[in-house]
Amino acid sequence: MNAAPGKISLVGIGPGSLDHLTPAARTAILDADTVIGYATYIKLVEPLLAGKEVIRKSMTEEIDRAIEALARAREGRKVALISSGDAGVYGMAGPTYEVLFEAGWNPESDIAVEVIPGASALNSCAALVGAPLTHDFCAISLSDLLTPWAVIARRLNAAAEADFVVALYNPKSGRRSEQIVHAQSLFLAHRDPRTPVAIVKSGYRARQKVELTTLAQLAEAEIGMLSTVLIGNSHTFARAGLMVTPRGYTNKYDVGSGDTREGEQRGRSLSTGLDGFVATVRDSAEDASRLAERFGLPLTYIEQLLAEPAAVT
Amino acid sequence: MNAAPGKISLVGIGPGSLDHLTPAARTAILDADTVIGYATYIKLVEPLLAGKEVIRKSMTEEIDRAIEALARAREGRKVALISSGDAGVYGMAGPTYEVLFEAGWNPESDIAVEVIPGASALNSCAALVGAPLTHDFCAISLSDLLTPWAVIARRLNAAAEADFVVALYNPKSGRRSEQIVHAQSLFLAHRDPRTPVAIVKSGYRARQKVELTTLAQLAEAEIGMLSTVLIGNSHTFARAGLMVTPRGYTNKYDVGSGDTREGEQRGRSLSTGLDGFVATVRDSAEDASRLAERFGLPLTYIEQLLAEPAAVT
Repeated sequence: MNAAPGKISLVGIGPGSLDHLTPAARTAILDADTVIGYATYIKLVEPLLAGKEVIRKSMTEEIDRAIEALARAREGRKVALISSGDAGVYGMAGPTYEVLFEAGWNPESDIAVEVIPGASALNSCAALVGAPLTHDFCAISLSDLLTPWAVIARRLNAAAEADFVVALYNPKSGRRSEQIVHAQSLFLAHRDPRTPVAIVKSGYRARQKVELTTLAQLAEAEIGMLSTVLIGNSHTFARAGLMVTPRGYTNKYDVGSGDTREGEQRGRSLSTGLDGFVATVRDSAEDASRLAERFGLPLTYIEQLLAEPAAVT
Repeated sequence: MNAAPGKISLVGIGPGSLDHLTPAARTAILDADTVIGYATYIKLVEPLLAGKEVIRKSMTEEIDRAIEALARAREGRKVALISSGDAGVYGMAGPTYEVLFEAGWNPESDIAVEVIPGASALNSCAALVGAPLTHDFCAISLSDLLTPWAVIARRLNAAAEADFVVALYNPKSGRRSEQIVHAQSLFLAHRDPRTPVAIVKSGYRARQKVELTTLAQLAEAEIGMLSTVLIGNSHTFARAGLMVTPRGYTNKYDVGSGDTREGEQRGRSLSTGLDGFVATVRDSAEDASRLAERFGLPLTYIEQLLAEPAAVT
C-alpha cells in the first residue's frame, strides 16, 4: 500500500438533476481524483468531471466498481463512487463495504470511507405524484439477479397484507418482464383492484414521465429499467392527477378547522393507541389464540399482553 | 381569493446541515415570502430567513401549519413549508394536500403547489452507520398519536416476519416510552436477539450521536424524540463499528475477485429467481396448501402458478 491516505466517497446524487445534488455530494465529486459509476449516472454529473479520471461501468458491474475504487484508493487517490438516488438504498454503499471488509479493510486503516446521503428514487418519485408516502412504506426490489424469488414474493405478500405503501425498485428490464405481473397478482390477493398506483420514469431528468393508474391496470402500464412503481395503501386516494396517502389526521382532527375530535387529545396517543389496544386485549372475552388471529399478531405477543402488566409494558 | 397567484412549496431540508440542503430546496426557501415550520427545523435554516415572515409552530400543529400556508398563499404569497428529511415521508406534504383538497383546491387553481424531495432520516442515518439499507426495507412510525396501535403492531410483525430491514420513526417521546418495548418484543418473535440495531440521534446536526447495539439490548439504549432506529435483517452484520446488509452479491459472485459463481450468469436472474421458483413449485410433490404454507404465500398465488403457464407468466 502507498503511504498517501486514499479516500472513497460513496455519493448519492439524488434523482439526477444538479438542482437536487446536495453541496456535500457536489464537493465530494469535485474533490475526487477518480469518479466511478454506471455510465448513465456519470452522464448526469458530467459538468463536474473536468480533469478527472472517469471510469464508466455497466449496470451489472457493481463489484468491479468497488474493487476498482479500492485499488485506486490504495494508490492514495480520492475516489467518488456515484449512485443515483441514495448510495445506501440498493446503491454502491453495500457492495463497497462488502469488498472492503473482504480485503481486510477497517475504519482505522489508511483508506477513509464516507457515505453521502441523497434523496432515493422513492422520495423523488413521491414528490412528483403528490404525497403517497405519508404513512408507513416498504421498498422492495423486483430484481431476482441477486435475490431468490421466494424471498421477494414473501416480502411482497407481507407488505400487501399489512397495508404498507410500497415502492417497487427495478420493476422490469429487457429480460425480466414477468416479475411485475407476479407482484400485481400477490397484491391483488389483499388489496382493492382500484388501489392507486403511480409509475414514474426518469423523475427530474430530461425524459421524465409520470403515469397514474390502478393496481388492476398495473401490468398494462409502460414500465422500464428507469421506472419506480408506487402502490398505495388501503387509504391512499387519487384526485386531480395526484396520489395522496392520509397520515391519519382525520382520526383526530377536523381537517377543515384544525379542531380536535371528541374523545381525542392534541399531543396524546389516540384512544385506540397502545394503551387502548392493551386494554381492549385484556378486556376481551376471546382467548389468546383467537386474539392473535384477529389482530394478525404472534401468539407470544398476545400472551405477554395478557400476563401481568410488568411483562411487556 | 386574491388575483395574484400564490404558491406553496413543500420543502424537504434533509438531515439539517446546510451541506445536505439541495439547491432546489435552498431556492424555494430563498424565494419564499413566508416560511412555516416546526421551531426546531426553522432553526436549521436560520441563515436563509433574513427579511421573511417566519411562522414557528409546535410539533403537533401540522394541520395548523397547512391551514396557515393556504391562508397566506390565498393572499398571493409564496410560502415554503419546511420539513426535516423528506417532505413526503411523515412530513408536511400529506397534511397539506389533505387540507388543500378539503378547501376545494385543485392543481388548476391559482395556488401552485410543489414538493421538493430530500434525504429522509432513514437515508441520512443509514449513511452514518455504514450500509444497513442495501436490501429491502420498511419505514414504520411508532407514533400512535394518529395511527391505532393494532395497525402499527401488525406492520411491525409483518416486517419482522418477512425479514425486512426496518427504520423506526418517532420511536419514543416523553409520553410514549412503551411503544419501542412492544416493537422489540414483536421483532424478537421472528428475529435473532443478536440482530444488529443502530440508533442515530440528530444525524448531521450539532448533537449527533450514533450507537450500535443489538435487538436484545434495544430497549436499554438511549432513544428520544430525535432518534431513528434501524433494525437489520437476518443477513445484516456489525463489524468495526459499522452495520452492513449484504445485497446478495455472494449468491452470485466471489466478492474478492469479482468472478461469477458456477451455475450463475452475470446480468441474468439467479437460478433461484422467478423462473427457478416457478419450476420448483410445479415440480414439487407437495399440494398447493402445503406449498403456500412452506413459502408463506397466498394459496391463490400458488394455485395460479400450478395452473396452466398462461395464467400468471
